[in-house]
Amino acid sequence: MANGNPIPYKIFLTENEIPSFWYNLRADMKNKCAPLLNPETHKPMTSAELEKVFCKELVRQELDDTTRLIPIPEEIRDFYHMYRPSPVVRAYCLEKAIGTPAHIYYKFEGNNTSGSHKLNSAIAQAFYAKKQGLIGVTTETGAGQWGTALAMSCAYLGLDLKVFMVKISYEQKPGRKEVMRTYGADVTPSPSTTTNVGRRILEAFPGTNGSLGCAISEAVEYATTHEGYRYVLGSVLNQVALHQSIIGLEAKAALDKYNVRPDIIIGCAGGGSNLAGLIAPFMGEKINGMSDAKFIAVEPASCPSFTRGSFAYDYCDTGKVCPLAKMYTVGSQFIPSPNHAGGLRFHGMSPILSQLYHDGMLEARSVEQTSVFEAAEFFARTEGILPAPESSHAIRVAIDEAMKCKKTGKEKDILFGLTGTGYFDLSSYRKFNDGEMSDSIPTDEEIAKALTQLPQVE
Amino acid sequence: MANGNPIPYKIFLTENEIPSFWYNLRADMKNKCAPLLNPETHKPMTSAELEKVFCKELVRQELDDTTRLIPIPEEIRDFYHMYRPSPVVRAYCLEKAIGTPAHIYYKFEGNNTSGSHKLNSAIAQAFYAKKQGLIGVTTETGAGQWGTALAMSCAYLGLDLKVFMVKISYEQKPGRKEVMRTYGADVTPSPSTTTNVGRRILEAFPGTNGSLGCAISEAVEYATTHEGYRYVLGSVLNQVALHQSIIGLEAKAALDKYNVRPDIIIGCAGGGSNLAGLIAPFMGEKINGMSDAKFIAVEPASCPSFTRGSFAYDYCDTGKVCPLAKMYTVGSQFIPSPNHAGGLRFHGMSPILSQLYHDGMLEARSVEQTSVFEAAEFFARTEGILPAPESSHAIRVAIDEAMKCKKTGKEKDILFGLTGTGYFDLSSYRKFNDGEMSDSIPTDEEIAKALTQLPQVE
Repeated sequence: MANGNPIPYKIFLTENEIPSFWYNLRADMKNKCAPLLNPETHKPMTSAELEKVFCKELVRQELDDTTRLIPIPEEIRDFYHMYRPSPVVRAYCLEKAIGTPAHIYYKFEGNNTSGSHKLNSAIAQAFYAKKQGLIGVTTETGAGQWGTALAMSCAYLGLDLKVFMVKISYEQKPGRKEVMRTYGADVTPSPSTTTNVGRRILEAFPGTNGSLGCAISEAVEYATTHEGYRYVLGSVLNQVALHQSIIGLEAKAALDKYNVRPDIIIGCAGGGSNLAGLIAPFMGEKINGMSDAKFIAVEPASCPSFTRGSFAYDYCDTGKVCPLAKMYTVGSQFIPSPNHAGGLRFHGMSPILSQLYHDGMLEARSVEQTSVFEAAEFFARTEGILPAPESSHAIRVAIDEAMKCKKTGKEKDILFGLTGTGYFDLSSYRKFNDGEMSDSIPTDEEIAKALTQLPQVE
Repeated sequence: MANGNPIPYKIFLTENEIPSFWYNLRADMKNKCAPLLNPETHKPMTSAELEKVFCKELVRQELDDTTRLIPIPEEIRDFYHMYRPSPVVRAYCLEKAIGTPAHIYYKFEGNNTSGSHKLNSAIAQAFYAKKQGLIGVTTETGAGQWGTALAMSCAYLGLDLKVFMVKISYEQKPGRKEVMRTYGADVTPSPSTTTNVGRRILEAFPGTNGSLGCAISEAVEYATTHEGYRYVLGSVLNQVALHQSIIGLEAKAALDKYNVRPDIIIGCAGGGSNLAGLIAPFMGEKINGMSDAKFIAVEPASCPSFTRGSFAYDYCDTGKVCPLAKMYTVGSQFIPSPNHAGGLRFHGMSPILSQLYHDGMLEARSVEQTSVFEAAEFFARTEGILPAPESSHAIRVAIDEAMKCKKTGKEKDILFGLTGTGYFDLSSYRKFNDGEMSDSIPTDEEIAKALTQLPQVE
């Protein structure tokens, strides 16, 4: 009890209460996600095809849309014990500063060295790679949170890791690169001369800064041309949403202790891994008619997959070598204008969230970055945590909803996901502090043009 | 219970169990600390003299060596609720990696945006300034942890903050500067043209990188020449040790729950605030004959106040404007060779710890920085937390002690203080990763020379 309050500032589960199963929301969905398609044949990807790129057990999880609960192996639970359970925080100071009758809660995933929720899936993917007897895994990283999380997981399990880091991030975020190296990862700026695709791109665009799409292509090429390696990915995929369900399961268990049933659940959405994980058990209740909670996905106005994109099959990468997924997308060739939330610049969206949005189970809202940083700064000063720009999208909308409650006088329970900390994003905060930050919203023509390039699928 | 273990990975107190009193170890010490002396008259500093520089209530705490328990005001406890209690972690993974029969515990103070234990005293000092009706406070910062902690505290209370940041840190650590600015602090590189002492130094040494001693002088000048301001300091002082006792009180309460009585307690020591706080209640037991625990202060070989310094009156700053304290010191004019643990480069040591060391209640050990970073990397990879270079001094000795237990087969309980995270120290990790780090130990002549310049006190 917090200084006389019936609910503490931070609701912690005990370590015994860390979930022992992941929850597979797809098993409860009325309309299942459409299958991944082979980018060349446009036929559903088979397990055999997927296993050339991904670990066997992860392919099984990717394709399984019927098993509700999937046991978390003990080795992964051991690792979870190092940094979980993460707290649900009651934002008493924020509520007071706003003067809202709403009760605001956030699930804080930033209290680990990777600085975000990415670690939840990184350890799972690394574990299955190790179990399969692999030497190592490859991946790409942009902002660096996923690369860091994977480096920590691979160091823990003694697995080799090759990270292809978008060149401009490699140069602008030396700190991120060093964390990965300290955890033993081999970090290569992308495009590089170590892969065919990298060499081709360097030849065509000698001064290029690189892109996530290019880094993905290099990581996939390395994995598929080196014995004992597979490729792993930190978002978008169903398996990632599955692992991230631990966020929602813990949040629900914590709130249940105090009989709190959130009316509104809010999360930022780039590829969708955090939001899919946070909402999973709450959405399961809604699907089964046990709740009428409202769910809000928040995306940057500069990359508005939900709010201005199409629900269609599209490539997951700009290089068009990855499978096609049916999802909300602004087109794999869409280039978002600069935005400081690097983790939200992906053109598409988790197929699970896309289906739910299509079915009217989920709302979406797009917000501009200056208003996001205003919310971030306000939150930092009142709640004492410097948030990641990505997470601050959720903060923005949580504050907006709490302000509405102030007008209506309604005591709503609001839960949002605070996915990570902004310790490696201080150049963005500098721009905001110096008044140099601007908003940039794509025109209708820009989006329409990118959408004309969607693949034609029968 | 952690996967069948009787003790969880992380022992958390409930929020109700956050201590409501600080513990003033001086009340139990057989030999009290010598009084602070006026740097000009060499007479004991009076309250009135101290109150020109420091807040009234903090002066009272500074001079009080008889009251055992001092109530923590409710407003400070409210703030503590945002990030405390901090966990005591059982280092199962580290123990396994070393193969030691020892049980290793660490009190982790890094899970807050300031990244260290400094926040415990920052909020207390800011609170008393606010209560006194001041407009604001001034301080200096080197590595930036103290400045960040104080900026967070002042933002929370609506207090103005002027930080004088050592110029080279200001330039090399833009991230640290930005966090402080995001929390509304005014950050000035030191030496600056805004103070007399700054202008004098700039005239004498036009290209200077600045020093902590100079920044202190500027901060003190600003506070004493501006109505409504006082100066605050993050270490060395008795009041800081008092506030930091919350570390030890929580650690003891957590370990008591599982009947663990540490045999060895280890902490890094720069000015001594963290170590004094961590050991306080355990040392109280030892003084009162209820324990025979061993206490180890770990300092860098490059700045060996305990292991190679003198127990004597010395200035707390290089500018010789601050009071004289009786402490272990290598001399206020000693310039430590470069070391990446910026927080451990102070020439002196907490008067409380100095007296205890002098009385044989505390051991000290000095370690070289390459071996410290080896320990840091090993710890990061096994325990999943990237430690601050300062904290890693304690890790080094904890591992050394655990290795001894491996030889002797003894199941000792080892507790150390993990004061903070290394997220803003990645340029140091880069040097280590690239094999560019070296050790540098002062010669006997260098230390002897610095000691000849100690003030002559009757």
